[in-house]
Amino acid sequence: MSLDQNKIPQATAKRLPLYYRFLNNLQMQGKTRVSSKELSEAVKVDSATIRRDFSYFGALGKKGYGYNVEYLLGFFRKTLDQDELTEVALIGVGNLGTAFLNYNFTKNNNTKIMLAFDADPEKVGKEIGGVPIYHIDDMEEKLGNVKVAILTIPAQEADRITERLVVKGIKGILNFTPARITVPDDVRVHHIDLAIELQALVYFLKHYPLEKIDNEEENTY
Amino acid sequence: MSLDQNKIPQATAKRLPLYYRFLNNLQMQGKTRVSSKELSEAVKVDSATIRRDFSYFGALGKKGYGYNVEYLLGFFRKTLDQDELTEVALIGVGNLGTAFLNYNFTKNNNTKIMLAFDADPEKVGKEIGGVPIYHIDDMEEKLGNVKVAILTIPAQEADRITERLVVKGIKGILNFTPARITVPDDVRVHHIDLAIELQALVYFLKHYPLEKIDNEEENTY
Repeated sequence: MSLDQNKIPQATAKRLPLYYRFLNNLQMQGKTRVSSKELSEAVKVDSATIRRDFSYFGALGKKGYGYNVEYLLGFFRKTLDQDELTEVALIGVGNLGTAFLNYNFTKNNNTKIMLAFDADPEKVGKEIGGVPIYHIDDMEEKLGNVKVAILTIPAQEADRITERLVVKGIKGILNFTPARITVPDDVRVHHIDLAIELQALVYFLKHYPLEKIDNEEENTY
Repeated sequence: MSLDQNKIPQATAKRLPLYYRFLNNLQMQGKTRVSSKELSEAVKVDSATIRRDFSYFGALGKKGYGYNVEYLLGFFRKTLDQDELTEVALIGVGNLGTAFLNYNFTKNNNTKIMLAFDADPEKVGKEIGGVPIYHIDDMEEKLGNVKVAILTIPAQEADRITERLVVKGIKGILNFTPARITVPDDVRVHHIDLAIELQALVYFLKHYPLEKIDNEEENTY
């Protein structure tokens, strides 16, 4: 079945990596099928949305059977371009940056941190997780053709560094600083604010308490 | 104007902390009003949704003026219970955990990491960012009345530790491990998978390239 990428709505596309990762875990556990209800509980998207999303992928769940895990994984792998590597630069080798370098992303993904930058002379010239650390002053020279950067620098540096990245031609930034950064229209930023994530969890706990259901059903996240 | 918390739809409630943080930044920059278009670009929620959300807050934007920043902030502060502190425990003082302890969350928020746990004897008994680190074996004894935990442990530890947290009575978990964890229905988990965040950014970059708009409009994230 051939499928035109552009026909997947953007909201659906946004959930693809989430579906992919969850189904990958299922397959590793030896599961061959999954219901939209199970998926719904695991990825926290309602069942109706999942069924609509999956219909775009050419996957039709069968009643009492669910979806074929292997078919879906094959589709997602193709769609997410698992085989085509995207090189990523990490800016700022503090604790959060170091966590990223140790974690790296090669195990399941099509992304790899190729190089890192920091201003600390103690760090420059070293490697963490096999990734070389260069001086932040050499950023433009070393970045080469890299188009994606992870920002793990102090908030007060965010604007200045972002400006340099944009001038150099970076097109995607994963911003982990608490600062909101300003970019031209053709640069994509995903902002992950750790404080807001925690605050949202606490807000939900207070105002939308969950209830224990009798049949001891459990949720996987 | 009095407002029944329960009348805010859950999808709207989920965006509250995001709105709050952005408006707080605006006020720090001395701005007194904001349009739904500006808000939309900054928080990446479409204008129509923002207008609907804000109508639940009793905030009606005026054409050509926008929303009053101070009114909204006052409302959000009350709603997010900024004044009531929620105590949080951090489990796992590796690089990511250390980043959280140094960052902590007291500056703008109603959450504070009160204590941390790790198995490394080098770390136990020390403090980072003023937060004491205890041995993971003493977790049940030290947790006291804390109901929220941040998980920054290795993936292979996630299930075992989660089980202990649930037995002890933890009701909210911010899961930063790549592992999906299983909890009873009355425990809320927010899962932040750093690999998926990066993968989603890369996927968007490839399939939904942004275009430079003529009038050099810029976006703030």
